[in-house]
Amino acid sequence: MKQLKEILLNIRKLASAESVLHWDMETYMPEGGGEYRGDVMAYLSLLTHQMATGAALRDELSRHIDLKSGEFVNITLSETDKRMIYLTWKDLKKQLVLPDAFVEEMSKHVSATQQVWTKARKNNDFTAFAPYLEKMIALKKREAEYYGYEENPYDALLDGFEPGMTTTRVDTLFGGLKPRLVSLVERIGNAAPIDDTPLRQSFDTKEQWAFGLKIANAIGLDMTRARQDVSAHPFTIGFHPDDVRITTRLNDKMLLSGLFSTIHEGGHAMYEQGLPKHHFGTPLGEAASFGIHESQSRLWENMIGRSREFWDYALPILKTHFPQLEKVAPEDWYRMINIVKPSLIRVEADEVTYSLHIMLRFDIESMMMNGTVKVMDLPGIWNEKMKEYFGITPANDGDGVLQDVHWSFGGIGYFPSYAMGNLYGAQIMERVEKDIPGLWAGVREGKFEALKTWLNRNVHEHGRYYDPEKLIETISGAPLSADPFMNYLEKKYTEIYRL
Amino acid sequence: MKQLKEILLNIRKLASAESVLHWDMETYMPEGGGEYRGDVMAYLSLLTHQMATGAALRDELSRHIDLKSGEFVNITLSETDKRMIYLTWKDLKKQLVLPDAFVEEMSKHVSATQQVWTKARKNNDFTAFAPYLEKMIALKKREAEYYGYEENPYDALLDGFEPGMTTTRVDTLFGGLKPRLVSLVERIGNAAPIDDTPLRQSFDTKEQWAFGLKIANAIGLDMTRARQDVSAHPFTIGFHPDDVRITTRLNDKMLLSGLFSTIHEGGHAMYEQGLPKHHFGTPLGEAASFGIHESQSRLWENMIGRSREFWDYALPILKTHFPQLEKVAPEDWYRMINIVKPSLIRVEADEVTYSLHIMLRFDIESMMMNGTVKVMDLPGIWNEKMKEYFGITPANDGDGVLQDVHWSFGGIGYFPSYAMGNLYGAQIMERVEKDIPGLWAGVREGKFEALKTWLNRNVHEHGRYYDPEKLIETISGAPLSADPFMNYLEKKYTEIYRL
Repeated sequence: MKQLKEILLNIRKLASAESVLHWDMETYMPEGGGEYRGDVMAYLSLLTHQMATGAALRDELSRHIDLKSGEFVNITLSETDKRMIYLTWKDLKKQLVLPDAFVEEMSKHVSATQQVWTKARKNNDFTAFAPYLEKMIALKKREAEYYGYEENPYDALLDGFEPGMTTTRVDTLFGGLKPRLVSLVERIGNAAPIDDTPLRQSFDTKEQWAFGLKIANAIGLDMTRARQDVSAHPFTIGFHPDDVRITTRLNDKMLLSGLFSTIHEGGHAMYEQGLPKHHFGTPLGEAASFGIHESQSRLWENMIGRSREFWDYALPILKTHFPQLEKVAPEDWYRMINIVKPSLIRVEADEVTYSLHIMLRFDIESMMMNGTVKVMDLPGIWNEKMKEYFGITPANDGDGVLQDVHWSFGGIGYFPSYAMGNLYGAQIMERVEKDIPGLWAGVREGKFEALKTWLNRNVHEHGRYYDPEKLIETISGAPLSADPFMNYLEKKYTEIYRL
Repeated sequence: MKQLKEILLNIRKLASAESVLHWDMETYMPEGGGEYRGDVMAYLSLLTHQMATGAALRDELSRHIDLKSGEFVNITLSETDKRMIYLTWKDLKKQLVLPDAFVEEMSKHVSATQQVWTKARKNNDFTAFAPYLEKMIALKKREAEYYGYEENPYDALLDGFEPGMTTTRVDTLFGGLKPRLVSLVERIGNAAPIDDTPLRQSFDTKEQWAFGLKIANAIGLDMTRARQDVSAHPFTIGFHPDDVRITTRLNDKMLLSGLFSTIHEGGHAMYEQGLPKHHFGTPLGEAASFGIHESQSRLWENMIGRSREFWDYALPILKTHFPQLEKVAPEDWYRMINIVKPSLIRVEADEVTYSLHIMLRFDIESMMMNGTVKVMDLPGIWNEKMKEYFGITPANDGDGVLQDVHWSFGGIGYFPSYAMGNLYGAQIMERVEKDIPGLWAGVREGKFEALKTWLNRNVHEHGRYYDPEKLIETISGAPLSADPFMNYLEKKYTEIYRL
């Protein structure tokens, strides 16, 4: 076991090094450094892959588990070690089932497709992108076959983001979500619009930066083990629980964008900081899933950061940074930061419409993977669904079917995790409210310690011990459902929009 | 040859990755990240060492050169490839002759000694440091025996910094330097002091930063392939000629410190940017020596950056950043930035007294390596020499024998390179002035392109093709000597101090 863990730790060191290089590439690297940086990262990636599939790891692992069948051969393992061994085996198997030739073909196709997509989006030219997407789907179908699945090839891809999740399960969950969500969006659309004139000003970015960091600190991001920098697209990356980086982008015309980005990434970063250090390097030291990660960012960003109680605490501080907001009444502020507005672009969507963007993509992805749609028909289908869900239609494919980067890098199966994050987060919060009766009174005073500690204990410290649905069930005592999220949204927005 | 170069390139990728991690550690890493960062860097270092001494490299190399004798076995090699093969072999041999147990003992002793030194310097407690230094010397003597030498064990260490340099040779060169330097310092000490009241003001660090970058750009540092950040101690680090980082530190009370640090590191960085890219990864793509590197930084910092012509161009720009200097006359400015003042601390020394600090350390190091001095006598010897060279005595050992970090990390043999840099630089500049008749007229107008291009062609692009003394001889047509440097200093300072 000691040798196995040592190998895993060494693999993690290479991956951590690559992450530092990635972070630098996105934040500080001079333009000229890009080409060589790609070479270095590819080499680290190759070494990591070689070690993660190498004989040393396989030999050590096979002392505990049969590499073919996945049956334990070491019968003295504790439950924790069993899970660690199982996950190591599962990760290894996923790497081993892909033939080298396939990995190379995929890697080349991803490079080519990303270039084509970048240009196609700029030119609103779906025709240029279509053959590449078509081949990508064909490759992803092959990948699904290599991985294997019980019911639906799309399941094999979903499992890479939400372990244990299936198309049927997502269908059920989204089925419980869609009608209530569409109805809520419609009712909000018919309500009196909220005035956001105070937000339509210029806000000094240095003050935005200072305020954002103050808030990140306040909610519990440990800045002796984290830092924030600027990048084109905000992200969080963890090299180790003691060294986590978040980024943001600031725009003097968009106060909310930079601020909520810091809280969002801060939620991700607190998860990374809270992962169990004694399992670092092993799968148990990792996050449970993409969706659980997203639950942490969205819980802090939306359920806390867009709550009335949070702004009881934060608005007076914001006003010291921006005296121009002096006269804004707390209730007006609370309403304007929660404006719901159907829009074309997913990444700019509010917390109500966001999940609809995801459902649209999920529908299309599962159709593509099941061959029930022709790639050339996608723009039309996209636009129809936009009409159906939001009542609006993109003027061009760049703001429509071409808007996301995910398909171009082969990230099919990724989107559902974003919406899952909303469901997980709301179901977690229901439990939090029971366990911490003084939660909202605390938030109103800028005290977030109880929540952070609760999340540390009940979410972060479990690492990858539970599959995501199992984790939620363990926490909440009930199977995952769309109800907590919809109850939360309906209550909040009925009040905000006086429905 | 192709396989050999590929192995070397891969080794370089790992070393580059480690450099990025080092840069991040010194600039942005949150405090908490330090412990794990050490683990990751140590692992990358181990992998690099394993590859750099591994069977794959040895096998490929042995197709061209006999690993034992260093005789070429491939008789079809070009002169360039011969040199590349020879250097690869030389570097490999140096790694192979050290037994693993010795490397481990040294590594542990360095860790321990650095900790002890940090504390000892703070507490002015040489007694605490002495036994560690004593053991360090013993280890360095063993290291020298492993490497082998012809005349003097110190030669084996010098070679690691200035290939081909010997104690006798340094003695000769410093012998030509010392009497003239001591006499110059004495004459300056008797001259009327220069008034530097205008420098004793507060200078906004943001303006310092902006001005420094403007100058770095102007002298030819390509900022699409470089960047500057802040660190506790300024340094330059190159990941590749297309990605070089410099750092500085700014203090509102010390305008010159930050500014000349940027020019100094800029000189290092232009060397890194100018190294031959087609040899990148092989020894031919590396710098010729520590001293040649230092010649580039000092040439730009002192011979250009502290010249009257440079400030004809730069002072008006500086005044736009600092209107408080509006009334300073160009001649007064030129004199005050060239003040010579014997001081206790090497890193704060001016260009005249600097080499004396080095000579003092060289004397002591060679005595230590030859066993002609007892470690416990070092503080006394240090203080005597300070009195002899500078006419001053440190009040405590922290400002005396304990001031430098070098001995604590085992960097014995390093110091002479700093003074060599001055000699190399001056001898190079003599040639430059012949080759570029309009040099100083150009500098006066802020045109540095001719000089930068000349250095690219005649210094940088040679990489490590020549040993440092050979490079200087190739450039200047004469053997290395202290005369160009002393001629330069005497002419400049006779005028400045009206001697």
